[in-house]
Parts: sequence; C-alpha cells; structure tokens
Amino acid sequence: MTLASGFSASLPDWLEADLPNLPVVLPTLEDRMDLVNDLADRNWRAGNGGPFAAIVVDAATGRLVSAGVNVVLSSGLSSMHAEVTAIGLAQSALARWDLGASGADLQLVVNWRPCVMCYGATMWSGVRSLVVAGDGPELEALSGFDEGPVVEDWAAQFEARGIRVTIGVRREEAVAVFRAYGDSDATVYNARGAVV
Amino acid sequence: MTLASGFSASLPDWLEADLPNLPVVLPTLEDRMDLVNDLADRNWRAGNGGPFAAIVVDAATGRLVSAGVNVVLSSGLSSMHAEVTAIGLAQSALARWDLGASGADLQLVVNWRPCVMCYGATMWSGVRSLVVAGDGPELEALSGFDEGPVVEDWAAQFEARGIRVTIGVRREEAVAVFRAYGDSDATVYNARGAVV
Repeated sequence: MTLASGFSASLPDWLEADLPNLPVVLPTLEDRMDLVNDLADRNWRAGNGGPFAAIVVDAATGRLVSAGVNVVLSSGLSSMHAEVTAIGLAQSALARWDLGASGADLQLVVNWRPCVMCYGATMWSGVRSLVVAGDGPELEALSGFDEGPVVEDWAAQFEARGIRVTIGVRREEAVAVFRAYGDSDATVYNARGAVV
Repeated sequence: MTLASGFSASLPDWLEADLPNLPVVLPTLEDRMDLVNDLADRNWRAGNGGPFAAIVVDAATGRLVSAGVNVVLSSGLSSMHAEVTAIGLAQSALARWDLGASGADLQLVVNWRPCVMCYGATMWSGVRSLVVAGDGPELEALSGFDEGPVVEDWAAQFEARGIRVTIGVRREEAVAVFRAYGDSDATVYNARGAVV
C-alpha cells in the first residue's frame, strides 16, 4: 500500500451552498451565537457529524471570516471538530497559520466549551478571544460525547496567553440543540472504550 | 471576500519523495522511534515546522500505516502538528475516521508527550496505543514551545479509554533533536502571549 501524502477537509454541501447567504457582519455576540447554534443544529440533522459549529469573526466588527461545522463523519477525519474546521478555513482564507498576526483581533465563537483537542487547537490558532455558549456537564450528559480531561483552570490558561474568554451566550439555545441530538439515534463517535 | 469551503494539508516535498524508501515494517519500538526521531530532525532543518514527527503503525507487526511531520509552517494551518498529520494521513489511507474500527490495533509513535491539542487528537483517533520518547519539561525548556496545560494524570486518562501508553523509548535521541532545534534560529510558532 502506498502511504498517503496529504488529506483534505471540506464543508458539507448544504453549508457550502449556503455560504453566500450567511450574514457578512454579525454585530453582537448574540448574533454570532445564533448563527453557530443554527449551523450546529443543521449539521447533525444532515448527518455530517456532531451537533457543533464554530465561526471566526473580527472581534470588533463581527465581520465573518469563516464558518465551520463538525465534519468528522463526512470527512473521515477524527480531528475535524467544528473548531478545527473553522480555524483551518480561516487560516486557509487568510493564508496564514497565525490568525493573530499583524495585530488582528479575531474571535472564535462556538456552542460549548471546546473538548480537550479543540482547547489546544484554539490556543495555537492565534485567535485573541473565545466566546462559548456555556460550559459544564450538560453537553456530555445530553449528547453522550466524551469531551476529554481539560484542566480546571482552563479559562485562566487562555487568559494567561492573551486570549479573552466569554462564557454564557445563548446558553439555553445551545443546550436545546444537544438535547435534540441526544434524543436522536445519531452516531456518537467516541474513542474506543470511552469512560463517559 | 468569499468564505473558504475547504482546506488541505500535505507532507513536505522531501518526505513525500522519501515515502517509497521508508521501511515497510518496523518490528520493535526502537525501530519505530528511530524513524520518528530521524523525520523530526529532518523536518525542522527543512523549514517545514517544528522538530516533531509521528507515525501510525500496526502495533503487533509494525507495518507502517502513515508517516507525518509538523507542517504548521508549510501548510499554513496551526493544527497540523505531527500527530494530527499522521492521524489524518492514516485515516485518509484507510478511509475511516476511527482507526480502531473492526478491532484494528494501531499505534501512534511520537517523539514526546503530545501537546494539549494532540493529546485530544490522539484520544479521538481510535489508536489503541501511544508510544512516546519521553515526557517532562525538557521539550519546552530546550525548544521554547508552549505545550499547553495537560492534566496530571494524562496517561491514566488514556488507559481509562483503552489506549495503552509507553513512555521512554529512545529518550536521549529525542532530546538531542530538541536541543539542536533550540540552538538554531528556527521559528517557534507559539500563540500570542504564551506564558512559557
């Protein structure tokens, strides 16, 4: 067997088709999270992956830089959670691995506290702020996902690296998406033998 | 600006060209780590990214499934650490997001304890074992990289999820690569304001 020399990830067809219709600017944090919650709900219903979405925006203006969803199932790549996808799309569009280069103040908006992988992916991306709908056990309890072990002082660790954290935007709406997902028979793509 | 709908990562030219020359089978853990240390050293010297490499092998036979290196700089994607790259290449080659599907016993071999992102990426990949050259502060001290906050019981958390951990294969050789890198003027791609 020849070894692979590359791989790629793409948005699902429904979202690629909808990109031209997304708002160009999302002025408030609530505007931003409303889009994230909507994409998250549409994503799992379309069978592309988990009920997660993330966007990268200019923190000050709300100009949309990228929109990602969890494409683990459709891409066949376990790393393609919504945050990794949104960050990769933003870096691809801007042609730089450091989203914070040249003083840019970009923000990642996502519908829950990132899993341990995406916690690190956010940390290394160069975004200067993170906005989450919520944190806490609701996600794992409702969806069945294992989020992995994240340090207790996770938000302080972001702040120490110059990444501002806002928790609790459209929280109830985010939980409603997880509940709908958990009530369905969608695939939960945990690692083998997850303890959760 | 049109939003991006996909992105891709590729091995650097020197490694793609060398794939046909890599050993088909790496019987011992030392054989596996020797390849990883060699690729890690060649990678930073070629300017593709950090001094890191990772391979996925069949744990029992040592058959090589994928070989990855850190391609943050050459791909323009901050998530493309060696582990994420090797896992993505293996999943692409095998056409499945769960490397542990159908009872496969695949192993990730990497030249140090993964950073917090790759810790999670390993956890979600479906590999059934992880082999690292070492853990501890030498990597950050010698290379200048921020590895992020990882929980104290990181290895036990893997074991609880059915992922065996082996620490300390070709440790001195791995440290020598980090030392050479740290002594050079190569780019360290930390997030803004990293505390390390």
